[in-house]
Amino acid sequence: MAAALALAERGRGRTAPNPNVGCVIVKDGVVAGRGWTQPGGRPHAEAMALAQAGGAARGATAYVTLEPCAHGSARGPDCSGALAQAGIARAVVALTDPDPRTNGKGIARLRAAGVELETGVLEAEARRSMAGFLTRRALGRPQVTLKLGLSLDGCIALANGESRWITGPQARAHAHLERARHEAILIGRGTLRADAPTLDVRLAGLEARSPRRILLSLHPESGWTSIPAPVNIASLAGVDHLLVEGGAQAAASFLRADLVDRLLLYRAPVLLGGKPGLAGLDLTSLSDAHGRWRLLDSRMLGSDRVEVYERARS
Amino acid sequence: MAAALALAERGRGRTAPNPNVGCVIVKDGVVAGRGWTQPGGRPHAEAMALAQAGGAARGATAYVTLEPCAHGSARGPDCSGALAQAGIARAVVALTDPDPRTNGKGIARLRAAGVELETGVLEAEARRSMAGFLTRRALGRPQVTLKLGLSLDGCIALANGESRWITGPQARAHAHLERARHEAILIGRGTLRADAPTLDVRLAGLEARSPRRILLSLHPESGWTSIPAPVNIASLAGVDHLLVEGGAQAAASFLRADLVDRLLLYRAPVLLGGKPGLAGLDLTSLSDAHGRWRLLDSRMLGSDRVEVYERARS
Repeated sequence: MAAALALAERGRGRTAPNPNVGCVIVKDGVVAGRGWTQPGGRPHAEAMALAQAGGAARGATAYVTLEPCAHGSARGPDCSGALAQAGIARAVVALTDPDPRTNGKGIARLRAAGVELETGVLEAEARRSMAGFLTRRALGRPQVTLKLGLSLDGCIALANGESRWITGPQARAHAHLERARHEAILIGRGTLRADAPTLDVRLAGLEARSPRRILLSLHPESGWTSIPAPVNIASLAGVDHLLVEGGAQAAASFLRADLVDRLLLYRAPVLLGGKPGLAGLDLTSLSDAHGRWRLLDSRMLGSDRVEVYERARS
Repeated sequence: MAAALALAERGRGRTAPNPNVGCVIVKDGVVAGRGWTQPGGRPHAEAMALAQAGGAARGATAYVTLEPCAHGSARGPDCSGALAQAGIARAVVALTDPDPRTNGKGIARLRAAGVELETGVLEAEARRSMAGFLTRRALGRPQVTLKLGLSLDGCIALANGESRWITGPQARAHAHLERARHEAILIGRGTLRADAPTLDVRLAGLEARSPRRILLSLHPESGWTSIPAPVNIASLAGVDHLLVEGGAQAAASFLRADLVDRLLLYRAPVLLGGKPGLAGLDLTSLSDAHGRWRLLDSRMLGSDRVEVYERARS
């Protein structure tokens, strides 16, 4: 299942409105087929893995990060039917599909066809992997990641505005890879004026994966999709993953609206005493600040540290 | 030598103007004596370890974090002579003593007495261990550690001033242990007015080790030693380790004067958008900010992270 989750990452940010699913088919201890949801959402991961496995699928085990769909469409057949038809003997599923057209029906269909079922394997990891799809389903908006590149004292620029560069090349490459995993990037009007960032993906081979550019602004701006307030992210069609890249005002407005699901913090070993990374959050008590962020990952990138937090919603 | 360095830590912050030395005497693979410089500077580590080892010192190896002294005083004999007299066969020394009364003479005296010598073992670690003594010797001032307890976005309080508590109990206990390792703590006038901190060591068994309290202020304050500017730390007699605990103005004034040797950062997983931990540093170029801080240690204390940096002076 861990291998299927790794495959699922290949589609993150490119499969909306479909989930980014991963699938591995194993026959007699050997991988016979691997698949992940393709850009635009089709073919599904299972269809790709079955095509690769061919006749080896008969009697094999399929590991899928999401319940195989029970609804065919003009763009392809339903995956639960296809897995059963190919003779899959056992299916291991991380998460049931919240889509009402499937929600349990895919698993029922597989069971009815005599396929042995196991569910809930690495379910928490699968939830994180498909958080964009699940957030859109549950809350009607994209999953929002707030990225901040900070000094040790939490600054994003010197007092004179200089901000290139605080973090080093490894951290910046990591941030570009994160860009490629989001359908859209948002910045605020102040950052547009100050930095005129291109927001593209400058990694060899991934240049074509530069996301849509969204501006948080009351005024339209040529070449940009503008939204007036954080809550308007719900209207961004085809965007299940949104990366908020600053500045301090835009970041704070998303945090005040409790519309940040994930923090991506790059911290360089410098002290600046300059411009803070966050504007005011209107907090009146420290107890309101505690318990909101759970550390998921922390590692060094050169001399910088990257930390990933998720919003603890319990 | 690592064991000797660990023993040396017991004296840190209590041996000024003497260095905090550690000593382990090993005979036939068994520890026969352990010593560390006692509060006030006497007895020396070697004298304590020799007293513990007794006759077992004959033919043994002595591990010492600093070159044994060659100068006796009214308060005790010289250690190089004492080691030779006790019949130590081999001495392993981390660092030569910069004190002109010893500087090489202790080693020469041991060699002359037929003791086998090895030097430079864990020298960098020994330099850090005795940084207070060495900084006083080399620069005529205490070693300065700047402690900051920060949110992820570098704040030390909410906008309304609330600052208790940002970090959790484990981080605060760690900070109290650090207090016990400094002869003095300094805060700025604003922090005194806002928080009226007691600056004592609230750890069971270490209450008596609360350091002297220094105020960075142009105006004298009852119950405090006041100094008008960071450069005046040179005049603090008996203080080889100074802990600067804030606030933002005091911290920045020490950084602007390049009088911070060590950073002790506690970071809690909260976002505050409140009061920044550092006032302005008058930096005009990011290149001036880079390369100044080298990460020495990083670990989790509960849900907070502590990081220790040292000023890279090359």
